[in-house]
Amino acid sequence: MLIGVDLGGTFIKVGLVDFEGNILRMNSRPTYAQRGYTPIIRTMAEQIRELAEAQGIGMEDIHSIGIGVPGPVEYTTGRVLYCSNLSWRNVELGTELNSMLGKSVYVENDATAAGLGESLFGSTRGAENSVLLTLGTGIGSGIIINGSIYRGSHAAGSEIGHTIIGENFYDCNCGNNGCFETFASASAIIKYAQHRISNDRVKTLILESAFNKAENITAEIIFEAAKKGDALALETVDRMCKYLAIGILNIYNMLDPDIIALGGGVSESENFPIEQVKKKVNEMVFSKDVRYGEIVPASLGNSAGIIGSAFLGYYNNDGKSFESECRRELR
Amino acid sequence: MLIGVDLGGTFIKVGLVDFEGNILRMNSRPTYAQRGYTPIIRTMAEQIRELAEAQGIGMEDIHSIGIGVPGPVEYTTGRVLYCSNLSWRNVELGTELNSMLGKSVYVENDATAAGLGESLFGSTRGAENSVLLTLGTGIGSGIIINGSIYRGSHAAGSEIGHTIIGENFYDCNCGNNGCFETFASASAIIKYAQHRISNDRVKTLILESAFNKAENITAEIIFEAAKKGDALALETVDRMCKYLAIGILNIYNMLDPDIIALGGGVSESENFPIEQVKKKVNEMVFSKDVRYGEIVPASLGNSAGIIGSAFLGYYNNDGKSFESECRRELR
Repeated sequence: MLIGVDLGGTFIKVGLVDFEGNILRMNSRPTYAQRGYTPIIRTMAEQIRELAEAQGIGMEDIHSIGIGVPGPVEYTTGRVLYCSNLSWRNVELGTELNSMLGKSVYVENDATAAGLGESLFGSTRGAENSVLLTLGTGIGSGIIINGSIYRGSHAAGSEIGHTIIGENFYDCNCGNNGCFETFASASAIIKYAQHRISNDRVKTLILESAFNKAENITAEIIFEAAKKGDALALETVDRMCKYLAIGILNIYNMLDPDIIALGGGVSESENFPIEQVKKKVNEMVFSKDVRYGEIVPASLGNSAGIIGSAFLGYYNNDGKSFESECRRELR
Repeated sequence: MLIGVDLGGTFIKVGLVDFEGNILRMNSRPTYAQRGYTPIIRTMAEQIRELAEAQGIGMEDIHSIGIGVPGPVEYTTGRVLYCSNLSWRNVELGTELNSMLGKSVYVENDATAAGLGESLFGSTRGAENSVLLTLGTGIGSGIIINGSIYRGSHAAGSEIGHTIIGENFYDCNCGNNGCFETFASASAIIKYAQHRISNDRVKTLILESAFNKAENITAEIIFEAAKKGDALALETVDRMCKYLAIGILNIYNMLDPDIIALGGGVSESENFPIEQVKKKVNEMVFSKDVRYGEIVPASLGNSAGIIGSAFLGYYNNDGKSFESECRRELR
């Protein structure tokens, strides 16, 4: 049995996962981020113990624990370098949880873990080179190259949400202007609609659907208004599609993967305009003669993070590349 | 002995290279691009025969021939997909030259070949993950991942010059707006200076140095004028540095290599402001806690393409990854 943890700013979700990638049991607890890290890690340990108990197994039956974290991590030591949702900086997450449970703990960026999950059991299964983009509050990315997680030389790669792709009317949290995630995440499209409403006093169904309060606007409200033909909603969706296409084009022109999967809250809406994104990408590709990577919806939804995290340590013990070993086993 | 060919729009340069990466002999002939491909390939064959003769060796002493081409290629078949400098489309370069000389011929994008050259014998030697950017008429890139050439799943990757990083006052040849190479190549800075002179009637030393003819402006003229404190030249160089920094930042945030080398005509100028580029990148990095890849000048100059091309086929015969084999041999 494996344990996968999806550590979010709002909830800690823990899953007991079998070696075929099935989540057998799951539980979820509020994070209460303001508590600081030790109580949060203690809650995580409790959730894991509860799952084992409910399944009627002992800690000795658990191979390892993997945790996906919304921020950059040092995967070799299990340290969380920085996590704005939790106000964490340099937290020894792996060491702390290991000392509570006596099990091996592997810590990874959440989008990278989800990318591994999709690549082992989901939408990008079987691809040598793949990229998962998670479109949520920000944009996360999980890169698989030659069948293994790709982190770069200092584990600082795979921050595709912070590649600069244009000029925007507001700055990114990271301090730069024009980051991919300021154009095509949920927050990005909400901010754009709010900006047009307050600055340009545009009349729109979006505002009505949000009970005339701009702070109630959600990505879903915008997608639904676009479906009904609302002008500002259509403009907002068009703009998102344009920049999603640019972000995907840049991945093509750097990495040229077999497949790009779109996951995260925004893309899970049934009104998410994936065909419009594909069309836009097709218009922009560098060479019409080349077959580029497929663009597909991610298939594991919220489970991708838990499943991917669970497998982080599966084959890591003997120092081999666990993912490629894992793949060999799975084929 | 190995043969490396640098096929350019103006010159065909051929080098006889030993197994330690030294160019023993070289010759160069005008391409006369308008001749069409067969005469060009015939000239190439003649140049190779001449080099062998001058060295006193026979064709049987030549292991293989590699060619770097300024455009996308299908490296598995040796076909040049497209080459605007030569007006080539779908030219069977590998097959044609092979039929003339009876030797194995390997064809690769020129920046990728140069990236391999730098990685085997130059500025990025020893790095597991590296990127060479060649700043010339356009921007080419050669990506090495895990010690091997990285081309992507459809050999369409490594077109970093066509990643979109902003909004520009003119469109790229590829049809899109905002490509990296429209901001930071030689043509890009020349176009920007010309644009400011003709549209905004800016007074500048640049124009004087170009004998009052905007079409005479070169990158070097701009760098020299900047050194003398000319306002437009400083503005042009600042803008180039800003966008070079964005391009490098995007490479960090996607690939996070050990090292990024800057090569090509622009960067070879002694007035090229590499320190200003580094400073700008430092200001923009996502996390100040992370050590990112070094930024260095490429070290092999024009020879990188010939040396890298020469080694393309060295270990390819047995179907193994020739570059990693090559590296093992070299260590």
